[in-house]
Amino acid sequence: MLICEYDGTAYHGWQIQPNGISIQEVLEEKIGIIIQEKIRLTASGRTDAGVHALNQVANFRTASHLNTENLLRGINSLLPADIAVTVLRDVANDFHARYSAKSKVYVYRILNRPVKSALDRNYSWHVRTPLDLETMRETADLLRGTHDFTSFCAAGGDAHDHVRTVMDVTLAVTDGIVTFTIEANGFLRYMVRNIVGLLVDVGRGSVTSDDFKEVLAARDRTKAGITAPPQGLFLKEVRY
Amino acid sequence: MLICEYDGTAYHGWQIQPNGISIQEVLEEKIGIIIQEKIRLTASGRTDAGVHALNQVANFRTASHLNTENLLRGINSLLPADIAVTVLRDVANDFHARYSAKSKVYVYRILNRPVKSALDRNYSWHVRTPLDLETMRETADLLRGTHDFTSFCAAGGDAHDHVRTVMDVTLAVTDGIVTFTIEANGFLRYMVRNIVGLLVDVGRGSVTSDDFKEVLAARDRTKAGITAPPQGLFLKEVRY
Repeated sequence: MLICEYDGTAYHGWQIQPNGISIQEVLEEKIGIIIQEKIRLTASGRTDAGVHALNQVANFRTASHLNTENLLRGINSLLPADIAVTVLRDVANDFHARYSAKSKVYVYRILNRPVKSALDRNYSWHVRTPLDLETMRETADLLRGTHDFTSFCAAGGDAHDHVRTVMDVTLAVTDGIVTFTIEANGFLRYMVRNIVGLLVDVGRGSVTSDDFKEVLAARDRTKAGITAPPQGLFLKEVRY
Repeated sequence: MLICEYDGTAYHGWQIQPNGISIQEVLEEKIGIIIQEKIRLTASGRTDAGVHALNQVANFRTASHLNTENLLRGINSLLPADIAVTVLRDVANDFHARYSAKSKVYVYRILNRPVKSALDRNYSWHVRTPLDLETMRETADLLRGTHDFTSFCAAGGDAHDHVRTVMDVTLAVTDGIVTFTIEANGFLRYMVRNIVGLLVDVGRGSVTSDDFKEVLAARDRTKAGITAPPQGLFLKEVRY
């Protein structure tokens, strides 16, 4: 099992795909070189193009019995600077990065000030209009509990069951950065970004808290608003 | 007067120079296009290649009487994503970004953990050895007050007077990031990076607090240790 951190700016997301370089592809290649074996990573879930991870979890099977500490050092020495493996350890044979996960925590960062930021350009969504955080917080609380999140999932997503349970949701502000944190037992494609898109409309005052509640209840993917851009989103933690 | 933020990663520092692109050059060019006049920026001081700024201050003279709000928007629309002007306002004729400054605050970020970071690669110095923060803090306190900082200035620096007054110095830790903050009435070239270099040696235990004190007293630029790398350094604030 490995935990990795990546800056998604330069990648077409986690998952291997024909038309662009992916985090998974780079990791599989470098690990394969070190252990001299072709491996296949199973992650806790994919992240989309431009999305970052502080602690993505993945597992792979290998016949090799290398010392994990040396292996970790070797892999990191081959990886590009924007991908790092932070933890590597042997786990029980039945561990599955995706199916064994109890919950995942995502963070979305919004830079809320009139002017753009140079240092945060790849790590936040720049929203100029001052946001009404109190109303956003009240609205975000509506997400707690078990709901059918069809309204917030991407068209063409491959999940059939859209019911997920949100365990926790918080909205904090430090130095002009609004940080939205959400923990759930699973996430649909674009779910966090669609939720944040509509929440920001609530913060701007163009959508009310009641409208948000109706969208959630509608189970209709044509009802939600804009999808927040990828660079503000971070997979923070996967809990087992 | 303007306040600007920049990611120094791609630049050869603040100051215009023949063999590489500088922040000053880009700003002067874009401001010149908007106000249709050749201008020259005077900054609070230069920052070196790879060093960042959260709030660098600079001033320029112009005959134009454009509305500063429109001007700010126009400049930012032309600037690359890694430079942003955050404040622009008219000031008294005798304002001088460098000479009027009472003090400057620099922040240096050290990532102190065994493995590298993907997201912080351009914004911190990665130090693997666990640092003794208590001893580093005690040692950093020796910097307070007025001293001749010759031991910590770069060979070839152009300042003749090496006496500076340190008003404040703090060392904080959050999420594995050690943040060293120093406020002084002025800084010599490489001063913060040389101080941090020796402070980290103190934290590693290879240099004692007494050794540090002796280096400071020696007023000899051959006595200090390594120069910490540029990417951990941020000009945080200029006070007037």
